[in-house]
Amino acid sequence: MTYTAAADQFIAGSTNAEVSEADRSRVFHSWSAQGALNPLPIAGGSGCMLWDFDGKQYLDFSSQLVNVTIGYQHPKVVAAIQRQADKLTTIAPAQANETRAHAAELITDLAPDGFNKVFFTNGGADAIENAIRMARLFTGRDKIISRYRSYHGNTGAAIVATGDWRRIPNEYARGHVHVFGPYLYRSEFWATSEQEECERALHHLERVIQAEGPESVAAILLETIPGTAGIMPPPPGYLSGARQIADRYGILLILDEVMAGFGRTGEWLALDAYDVRPDLITFAKGVNSGYVPLGGVIISDPIAHHFDERVFPGGLTYSGHPLATASAIATIEAMREEKIVENAAQIGAEVIGPRLQEIAAQREVVGEVRGKGVFWAIELVADRETKEPLGAPEMGKIKAGLLERGLLPFISDNRIHVVPPAIITADEANRGLDIIDETLAAYRP
Amino acid sequence: MTYTAAADQFIAGSTNAEVSEADRSRVFHSWSAQGALNPLPIAGGSGCMLWDFDGKQYLDFSSQLVNVTIGYQHPKVVAAIQRQADKLTTIAPAQANETRAHAAELITDLAPDGFNKVFFTNGGADAIENAIRMARLFTGRDKIISRYRSYHGNTGAAIVATGDWRRIPNEYARGHVHVFGPYLYRSEFWATSEQEECERALHHLERVIQAEGPESVAAILLETIPGTAGIMPPPPGYLSGARQIADRYGILLILDEVMAGFGRTGEWLALDAYDVRPDLITFAKGVNSGYVPLGGVIISDPIAHHFDERVFPGGLTYSGHPLATASAIATIEAMREEKIVENAAQIGAEVIGPRLQEIAAQREVVGEVRGKGVFWAIELVADRETKEPLGAPEMGKIKAGLLERGLLPFISDNRIHVVPPAIITADEANRGLDIIDETLAAYRP
Ligand SMILES: Cc1ncc(COP(=O)(O)O)c(C=O)c1O
Ligand SMILES: Cc1ncc(COP(=O)(O)O)c(C=O)c1O
Repeated sequence: MTYTAAADQFIAGSTNAEVSEADRSRVFHSWSAQGALNPLPIAGGSGCMLWDFDGKQYLDFSSQLVNVTIGYQHPKVVAAIQRQADKLTTIAPAQANETRAHAAELITDLAPDGFNKVFFTNGGADAIENAIRMARLFTGRDKIISRYRSYHGNTGAAIVATGDWRRIPNEYARGHVHVFGPYLYRSEFWATSEQEECERALHHLERVIQAEGPESVAAILLETIPGTAGIMPPPPGYLSGARQIADRYGILLILDEVMAGFGRTGEWLALDAYDVRPDLITFAKGVNSGYVPLGGVIISDPIAHHFDERVFPGGLTYSGHPLATASAIATIEAMREEKIVENAAQIGAEVIGPRLQEIAAQREVVGEVRGKGVFWAIELVADRETKEPLGAPEMGKIKAGLLERGLLPFISDNRIHVVPPAIITADEANRGLDIIDETLAAYRP
Repeated sequence: MTYTAAADQFIAGSTNAEVSEADRSRVFHSWSAQGALNPLPIAGGSGCMLWDFDGKQYLDFSSQLVNVTIGYQHPKVVAAIQRQADKLTTIAPAQANETRAHAAELITDLAPDGFNKVFFTNGGADAIENAIRMARLFTGRDKIISRYRSYHGNTGAAIVATGDWRRIPNEYARGHVHVFGPYLYRSEFWATSEQEECERALHHLERVIQAEGPESVAAILLETIPGTAGIMPPPPGYLSGARQIADRYGILLILDEVMAGFGRTGEWLALDAYDVRPDLITFAKGVNSGYVPLGGVIISDPIAHHFDERVFPGGLTYSGHPLATASAIATIEAMREEKIVENAAQIGAEVIGPRLQEIAAQREVVGEVRGKGVFWAIELVADRETKEPLGAPEMGKIKAGLLERGLLPFISDNRIHVVPPAIITADEANRGLDIIDETLAAYRP
């Protein structure tokens, strides 16, 4: 859906070439060699649609960095930002502010019972930094266990908690240990069933903890559903098993809901679908669809109370920013009123899931599809037997094919992540899936 | 000055008591024990004035966390945020966006020649993280030298680069070494003149580098004028001396302009007043007065080009956020048109400086005053001979006295920082200084 009828009548003042040139000469980009970049110029968007300065339209199957859950330019969220801008744009964390307090209330209401405080940050990485800080100070221990297949952000501790290649050039933080998680399609445990994968992943987790010295471990940090690493919903029993192991050794459990949270999986929090209670929950992205930079930590009572008498040694200038928290209030209210989380669940169960299964059955290049809600991965392989991942040049061709056909995709390694805004209609979802199917059908190794 | 005539007619929907209660029950605050907190409820502001929900007004001598350089609710900046919200609230760093590119252009135009790219972040800490990352990757070395009296942010590396007490419970990053900087009033070098302090501080810096192994040092990281640590303008020759030492050993110089930059010192960048050319400049706060979370790194050409062919392994979801960069454009333009930087210089030279000298001469409790522009510290001492810092209970009483008289102060350790918005008029500055003088006159040990 789009929020403005006039989406396709947008007249931009600049051209793609001009904007690309301005960007190239002044803007330094994330995670890239700057010389080879050719960023897509985007002039505007509405709902699930984006367009460039030359008038070409794209159906968004990326939600940018999987953050625009409510779609582009939701009128209620835009209006809330504008109203708050009129009232009070900025105020320091040390003051009391009603917008910030109201957002904290709405957010804690979505968390399990016994989570009553929010520490706000500007994004996901600093949420992780502060959750790790809380866990270390609460337990008096220092190691953080996280998964190799994970991404937790780009700052000092968050990037070293991250498991993927991005950690390697950035290893300046100590106290991080990585484990393999359950991922049956590429099992690290020689498992042949979901249940075996789950049991062995838990066994491996506990053995690493024992070998590291349980009394040195502050927290197990897991994305509820690993996102950038491949959207791998954990098998039933994994998260509750991790919780039990944590309890056995006095270790905290931090669930990172930065990407999976706030509607993405068809639940308010991804953890709602699992029998698990963490000690700390990190969020960002979907909480306000990134309309204003915002993230945070939802804190369970024992940890919050630990800092009643002790100074919490962390903070940031824009913690609980009024404009950001105003947009979170409006986002949560609009998602409730418009049943956007329910829509994500339904589209996942009735459209995306079934159609991806069909595509997987028909297209040899698909190794596996998995996910839920509007959070799916299509794993592409050069060979179904060996599961050899499709290489970067091939993925580049597929990406170009999708863009050419008017789909903005999210490509990660050998995968297409199907992660549209949660407001997507069945028609739009089918249109995007048609494009993916066509592109994969046209693909020749 | 205030931007709306109606500032004092503001009718709030809530009361102080209600907002305090909502805040207390849900919001986890920075750098504090949560139990003892009593945050000041702020309902709104305009220019240099703020007011609570019960109608009490405060003249702001804090700029919150020294970020609201342009004052509260500047109409042009508010309008720019609202316009951008109508156009496109959010877009990923990977796309090309004209607002982002334009902001980068205005920002690099304010930097020395040869700084042509900006990497945007959400605030100061992540700017520091990424500057440190660039320096390490560019040099292939890992140590970062910074000052004990410094603050650089709350994330993994930034908090360990920080020198003050906030580092101690957070030391999980490696590769950080601290030195003492020039601070004649409390010299670490037994110096008796500015020049001697400067020479000895440079000697000490070079000796630490030699002892650490110069080939292991990636960067010297300095706040151009240390802010939270006490607003200590460096003696002439210190920054250029640090530059020479850096050059001698192939080390980069990072100047942190997060607090001192964008008008605070009566210069666009604090470094403009010194004969020094850094390799990387970090910014946040004043760039858009914190109306939307924003920070970044201004990158000199050799470092930018280093990443033309090499992947830069850093990034964040909201790098170059359109709403944030739109507010930076409007802020820089308004500061230019309204000569706000010139105003800061003039108020500092003609009003704040001279009056603080008078107050220092008259009030026994003042040990030293120092600063420039709208960036001053009053150092309070229990004894002028021993320079024993005034203790926390006494500072608490002085803070209460200032608040009672309608001044919102910035208190750090034993200091009152005089850091109003840069738009402050001579009348307002005098009014605030009267309150400080009265309060210090009434102070009894
Ligand atoms: C699970 C997870 N955690 C943390 C982050 C970091 O968030 P940010 O980029 O806002 O710092 C991300 C970003 O993709 C993420 O997916
Ligand atoms: C000099 C300096 N650098 C970095 C920071 C960190 O900025 P932020 O709080 O936006 O992360 C601050 C904040 O006070 C600062 O004063």
